Amino acid sequence: MSEQYIYSFQNGDGKNKKLLGGKGANLCEMTQIGINVPPGFVITTAACLAYLQNNELPPDLMTTVKQEIDKLESATGKTFGRGPDPLLVSVRSGSAMSMPGMMDTVLNLGLNSETLAGLISQTGDERFAYDAYRRFIQLFGKVALGISDEHFDEYFEAVKNRVGVSSDVALTADHLREISDKFLAVVRRETGKDFPQDVMEQLKLAVEAVFRSWMGKRAVDYRREFHITPDMANGTAVNICTMVFGNKGDDCATGVGFTRNPGTGENEMFGEYLINAQGEDVVAGIRTPKALHNMELEMPEQYSQLVTLRNTLESHYQEVQDYEFTIEKGTLYCLQTRNGKMNAAAMVKTSVDMFAEKLITREQALLRIDPELLEQLLHPSLDPDTTAEPIAIGLPASPGAASGKCVFDADLAEKLGKAGDKVILVREETRPEDIHGFFASEGILTSRGGKTSHAAVVARGMGKPCVAGAEGIIVDVSLRQAHVGTRVLHEGDVITLDGASGMVYEGAIATIEAQFSDDLQTLLGWADATADLKVMANADTPAAARKALEYGAMGIGLCRTERMFNASDRLPVVIDMILADTADERQAALDRLLPIQQADFIDLFSVMAPKPVTVRLLDPPMHEFLPTETQLLEQLQVLRLYRDVARGRHTALAAMDAILEMPKPFDELSEEFVNDVLIKKERMLKKVRELREVNPMLGHRGVRLGIAYPEIYAMQIRAILGATIECAEQGVQVIPEIMVPQVITAQELATVRRTVDDLTSQLEESFGTKLNFRFGTMIETVRACTRAAELAENVEFFSFGTNDLTQAVFSFSREDAENKFLPMYNDTGILQYNPFEVLDVLGVGQLIEMAVERGRAQRENLKIGICGEQGGHPESIRFCHHAGLDYVSCSGPRVPIARLAAATAKLRDKEFDTANG
Amino acid sequence: MSEQYIYSFQNGDGKNKKLLGGKGANLCEMTQIGINVPPGFVITTAACLAYLQNNELPPDLMTTVKQEIDKLESATGKTFGRGPDPLLVSVRSGSAMSMPGMMDTVLNLGLNSETLAGLISQTGDERFAYDAYRRFIQLFGKVALGISDEHFDEYFEAVKNRVGVSSDVALTADHLREISDKFLAVVRRETGKDFPQDVMEQLKLAVEAVFRSWMGKRAVDYRREFHITPDMANGTAVNICTMVFGNKGDDCATGVGFTRNPGTGENEMFGEYLINAQGEDVVAGIRTPKALHNMELEMPEQYSQLVTLRNTLESHYQEVQDYEFTIEKGTLYCLQTRNGKMNAAAMVKTSVDMFAEKLITREQALLRIDPELLEQLLHPSLDPDTTAEPIAIGLPASPGAASGKCVFDADLAEKLGKAGDKVILVREETRPEDIHGFFASEGILTSRGGKTSHAAVVARGMGKPCVAGAEGIIVDVSLRQAHVGTRVLHEGDVITLDGASGMVYEGAIATIEAQFSDDLQTLLGWADATADLKVMANADTPAAARKALEYGAMGIGLCRTERMFNASDRLPVVIDMILADTADERQAALDRLLPIQQADFIDLFSVMAPKPVTVRLLDPPMHEFLPTETQLLEQLQVLRLYRDVARGRHTALAAMDAILEMPKPFDELSEEFVNDVLIKKERMLKKVRELREVNPMLGHRGVRLGIAYPEIYAMQIRAILGATIECAEQGVQVIPEIMVPQVITAQELATVRRTVDDLTSQLEESFGTKLNFRFGTMIETVRACTRAAELAENVEFFSFGTNDLTQAVFSFSREDAENKFLPMYNDTGILQYNPFEVLDVLGVGQLIEMAVERGRAQRENLKIGICGEQGGHPESIRFCHHAGLDYVSCSGPRVPIARLAAATAKLRDKEFDTANG
Repeated sequence: MSEQYIYSFQNGDGKNKKLLGGKGANLCEMTQIGINVPPGFVITTAACLAYLQNNELPPDLMTTVKQEIDKLESATGKTFGRGPDPLLVSVRSGSAMSMPGMMDTVLNLGLNSETLAGLISQTGDERFAYDAYRRFIQLFGKVALGISDEHFDEYFEAVKNRVGVSSDVALTADHLREISDKFLAVVRRETGKDFPQDVMEQLKLAVEAVFRSWMGKRAVDYRREFHITPDMANGTAVNICTMVFGNKGDDCATGVGFTRNPGTGENEMFGEYLINAQGEDVVAGIRTPKALHNMELEMPEQYSQLVTLRNTLESHYQEVQDYEFTIEKGTLYCLQTRNGKMNAAAMVKTSVDMFAEKLITREQALLRIDPELLEQLLHPSLDPDTTAEPIAIGLPASPGAASGKCVFDADLAEKLGKAGDKVILVREETRPEDIHGFFASEGILTSRGGKTSHAAVVARGMGKPCVAGAEGIIVDVSLRQAHVGTRVLHEGDVITLDGASGMVYEGAIATIEAQFSDDLQTLLGWADATADLKVMANADTPAAARKALEYGAMGIGLCRTERMFNASDRLPVVIDMILADTADERQAALDRLLPIQQADFIDLFSVMAPKPVTVRLLDPPMHEFLPTETQLLEQLQVLRLYRDVARGRHTALAAMDAILEMPKPFDELSEEFVNDVLIKKERMLKKVRELREVNPMLGHRGVRLGIAYPEIYAMQIRAILGATIECAEQGVQVIPEIMVPQVITAQELATVRRTVDDLTSQLEESFGTKLNFRFGTMIETVRACTRAAELAENVEFFSFGTNDLTQAVFSFSREDAENKFLPMYNDTGILQYNPFEVLDVLGVGQLIEMAVERGRAQRENLKIGICGEQGGHPESIRFCHHAGLDYVSCSGPRVPIARLAAATAKLRDKEFDTANG
Repeated sequence: MSEQYIYSFQNGDGKNKKLLGGKGANLCEMTQIGINVPPGFVITTAACLAYLQNNELPPDLMTTVKQEIDKLESATGKTFGRGPDPLLVSVRSGSAMSMPGMMDTVLNLGLNSETLAGLISQTGDERFAYDAYRRFIQLFGKVALGISDEHFDEYFEAVKNRVGVSSDVALTADHLREISDKFLAVVRRETGKDFPQDVMEQLKLAVEAVFRSWMGKRAVDYRREFHITPDMANGTAVNICTMVFGNKGDDCATGVGFTRNPGTGENEMFGEYLINAQGEDVVAGIRTPKALHNMELEMPEQYSQLVTLRNTLESHYQEVQDYEFTIEKGTLYCLQTRNGKMNAAAMVKTSVDMFAEKLITREQALLRIDPELLEQLLHPSLDPDTTAEPIAIGLPASPGAASGKCVFDADLAEKLGKAGDKVILVREETRPEDIHGFFASEGILTSRGGKTSHAAVVARGMGKPCVAGAEGIIVDVSLRQAHVGTRVLHEGDVITLDGASGMVYEGAIATIEAQFSDDLQTLLGWADATADLKVMANADTPAAARKALEYGAMGIGLCRTERMFNASDRLPVVIDMILADTADERQAALDRLLPIQQADFIDLFSVMAPKPVTVRLLDPPMHEFLPTETQLLEQLQVLRLYRDVARGRHTALAAMDAILEMPKPFDELSEEFVNDVLIKKERMLKKVRELREVNPMLGHRGVRLGIAYPEIYAMQIRAILGATIECAEQGVQVIPEIMVPQVITAQELATVRRTVDDLTSQLEESFGTKLNFRFGTMIETVRACTRAAELAENVEFFSFGTNDLTQAVFSFSREDAENKFLPMYNDTGILQYNPFEVLDVLGVGQLIEMAVERGRAQRENLKIGICGEQGGHPESIRFCHHAGLDYVSCSGPRVPIARLAAATAKLRDKEFDTANG
């Protein structure tokens, strides 16, 4: 028995979008629930695939099409290809996923010399008929016969020129008839055949053309761009529908509507219409359409039908609908409906409203919102009405918009920021020692580096806008200015950044504040109640912790202690520690760091209590805290010159002062001071060379550092435990979590654990108290996954560091890959996603599952989470839920997104897309 | 029912070394097969563990000991602790693994004032008795009572001084009695108690002391050093054995023997003996022992008993034995036996001989040899009789010994080498562009870098000796000399390297050639016939391939094409290719490389045919072929100076010529030439900066490079296939294997495969022939393991790159780890092995097993191997066999070791040691 390739609107399954396409399924659905849809039928996507495979239509397909056309004739009383009341049809594509404008459509099919005459006599409007005819010839000629538009346009323009008009509307019926004739001649010339007069032949060619358009370049590019895989949509259906006309008189109209206001979410009639017009006129902008509520006066009866249609659609689809309608001779037809696309605020409001109206359940209210959409609501954005032109464009590295004075170094940014100025930090690229400048700035702009550069990652973590790698901007710190083309930005000039688009503007552009509305709070409350996964934030400072709480974080999943080291009051001490030649010297520096770090933890714990705070012990290699070799060589070269130059020549030395970051001008410095600086820099250079690593990501870092220099971890652990005791004394109860990075074997954990236990005993004895904390490990090496059972013996929690783990699984590092070959891999489809943004289920995911299984087999109540950029990505969160994790931790501004994603993951728990690979 | 802790030699299980220790088990075994062993018994290792756990002997243990002593009394007619014929016993440690000298022993236990008198009257030798007594007091005092030797030595020396003698032998019975008395006083003073007269008390204290010595520092260090884990040996047994005396007259003797000559493997009586002497006299060197065959004349009857003993031992143990014996009053006692330790040549000869004698099977012949031992036979070694003192010491980076003139650059080394000189290449460190110097040299010496430096890896690959990182040597290339302390080595001075010890000598030291004997060939033939695993070699040149064949390689498992790129006639072309700004420029360079590379393959295939040759496509990042940024900056600085300096000052420029490697002296160069060099170097610098990567191991390399620059892989594939056709035309049939590095996803393989298929069609058409080759992939990323099924769809073979895979699993790179923290990790026992030397079964191994399982599930006949350093390591080979691999590939000189290891892996296939981690 052969497969059924054709379904009439009366009997197609409205739920089967894969087979009938989205548009076709909705036409069937609407027909079957009693909405007045012009009669028609759908040719399935299966027929499309069969056509593409065999390069011909399935046998008998056109026979069945003919039978369906016969039914349309019966239903409408019109005749196809002949007679005074000719049946015209539209032939539209429609796949399971919406791909607007990507595939072909033919309207008014069924016109030929005979039916043209019928149309004229029936409508009495010769101009309308010829206009329809010449449009049909051109569109069919292009779509079905492959004739390029220019061949038609040439004649069309020639007639307009001859007549001396510039607008199509000015052409008369005679002109249009002449054009139609010329178009028929074009077809003859270009194809060697007459334009097909046989309307079934027209139909066959149109169906084939629509099918072919599935593999057209536009459609293929679109699917790749939007990651539409064959399991999501495979082939297009063809919808063949009786044409109805909104331009047959003043009892006719055409319009589009939204069942609610897509800009605000208000529950109101929304849309526009035109009386006596075709659908395309509404869009074309030649006449100005009216807002829908005007129709209540102009066409009261049809308006009331429209209200009924709107209510029927919403109550049936339980979703805001975007629909099209035509009124032909007083009769309302619905031509199409689909779920309405709205902005984030409207999505949130309609979710909360529709639940209140009992139209949808809470689950539906959550599921209908793409979590990523919330991003819009969480950052200030540029006034969309701005007409300003950007002066430069970079990568959209951290969303949000901000204006401020440009400042070219972190120290000045801090100084001005503290004085109350709004500043934008502008650097060629940023380094950890610029961190204090980040705190003081409204936004960050760099001329080098990508979305994962230091600037981008830190800015995202702080929720500040960042435009990175704006290569058109040449920063010259020594002259305190930047060049943008021929323009010069001086320090203090005001600029505006849009981190969502990567645009940079001169002057201050108005911005719109983030809208953390009551509705959003309500919705996220439902999400928290639904989800299994907890959502934590990655935060390193009290300020970031406070911000994270506002975003609804349920704790801190990752506090990177090294970020604390980079603040300007600590870095010199950290450098002293690194430069130390003996354990005693190192201990002296650590003794100075201890109270500072302990105070940091007290602040952080006080903000977060009683929520958990996970502190990761020092992770990066030591050389990250030092300047680079090249920087030092340059400084030394200048410094030696500086020392040797005669004191008289101040002018030449001013620039040097800046490079050397000297505390006062050269002539106020003593020779001893300069010599001391020189010696210190030489020592630094020596150390930098000593610490140099070929592959720093694979070098001496994490627990390997903690074991080589046990006094560093001891200081940090002491600070955490000391802070816990001090908090307790102030009545603040916290249970800190101590986390060890880069672990590969249980012996490492046992070694650190001994330090923890020793310090615990000492402190408990000194303070006569009992310490309560948890000890855990990052799982960020592959070996940690294979050894998860043994690791679980030693710890109470695991936290997956998916950035490092991804790097280990792929054997390429994020910065090297993203700057070199990863874009090429994504473009050519070798990898579908950037695995550093979307967790790689097929590789990294398998190791995570292995570690979860082995870890829990050893310790049933092991707490397991994930921290890293992917922890805030909905697709990755879905995986984490599926893998049975307890929490995800992500940067503060991603927390609301993660909360919603955690809920939808729970509601959608089923098999994953496994096509990434 | 309580556990049996004591076994008499009559009833202990001689196979149960874990329980009885090696020594105890052998004493039982010998007793039970009728060899005359003095009666005694064993206290088990289980008793030791019980003692160590509870800090006291198991209840009733001493009661049972007393019963056993009673039996000894009955058997010998002697009495313990009393009587005229006192029973004396030795109390010796003995664990399952031999740990010579690491634990405690007490002799002559049972002496007290009463038995001393008995001993005197029975032997009539007062001096002998007091000498035994004072030795017993000191040894027992030290071992059982914890009294430091110095307390005894003080008195002993005082008596010797007073008497005025320097040797112990000169002391009389009276002196020794005085010393015994003083020793008893020392015990009283140091312990506050009298020396125990109760011999059962003596025995108890001695047993406890031996048990405790298992956890002594010496023993613990030894076990860590030699990787003795608790499953190999846990606790020591105690052997209590009746003392017999070889010094009771001329019908007494004592000696040690080997059942065959351990130096040569000859089947002959071997050993030494002394008449009327104690065991320790043979070792002490006071009297010169005689070779055993003398005994045939001196004590014919006992000699014939000894021959019988030797034959009995060998036929029973089926292994060469190292035994001790004593003749007391004409009666031969065997006191101990164990497997004899021999050098490699002797092991090989005895294996082949004992099989011929039908004493052992082929399997036993293979299994008794540690494959690593063969290393001794494969390289020339320094004359062991040399008395020369080394002038410097570095790391033993590649085994073998060689002498030659030192030469400080590769070009001169090549020049002199080609002229027939023997040279040693001496460099601070080597780089790929030095490769031609390696070919021409006898050995390589560097002052920097470790066992995995470029010099070490390349030298091992070529089987040439290398001493690396000899930091005492300061090389000054510009002056053509090196400083070693105050000594100066001029270019041309002869030195000798010992790559097995890391020693460097001045002058030529005699070396002994490698012994690839007939016996070894026979043995390895048996190994090949036994093993499932094939053994391939890693070889990049025809010379290395020829060498590999001599070693018995069954093919080439890894030919690294980039090594071909580094030869001095190619590197400039490769650099042109890298510097190319356009695809056309790049193609032009590749067109020049194609015939060179094709000729390389023809040579290689011709050497190896019909054995398989696996060629890996280009792997390293491009910047590896360029000088470093620092080198270029230095060259540019000099070059600019050079250009600017007045032509008159030649002297100053001579050194520059060397740095710049100019083809002729400055004054013969045109200005244009200098300018051209300058421009080229500047271009190189720009490219080096463009190509710079933060983590080159994780950067743009392998197949990622091949996809970004498809023309490079196309050239290589074209060269391989072209060479195959050309070989076929010359009647040489080869099936090359094309291997893709760094793969993470099947799409990469599909992309390269398309190039292969296109070129195949083109060539088959042009030449009217059919190409036969295999297409495969390295498995060296973790993701390749998780995606093994999908990869297997695209290839016919897998080859594990365990170096990269280990790096990915551990998240540390070999060079960074070995230079920084890995030694510390090994020293502190956090990791038991260096995972880059011994395959990490618990991490890397699990991924290999995953990939094998998934790959074979997809393609049943998938050929799977391993290449990389670990491929030549017996423990790793055992894993590879267990995991079901088809082959291992290792550097040429490791091939014989791998062949033997492959055979023993097959013979020993059972569960692994899983204690690494």
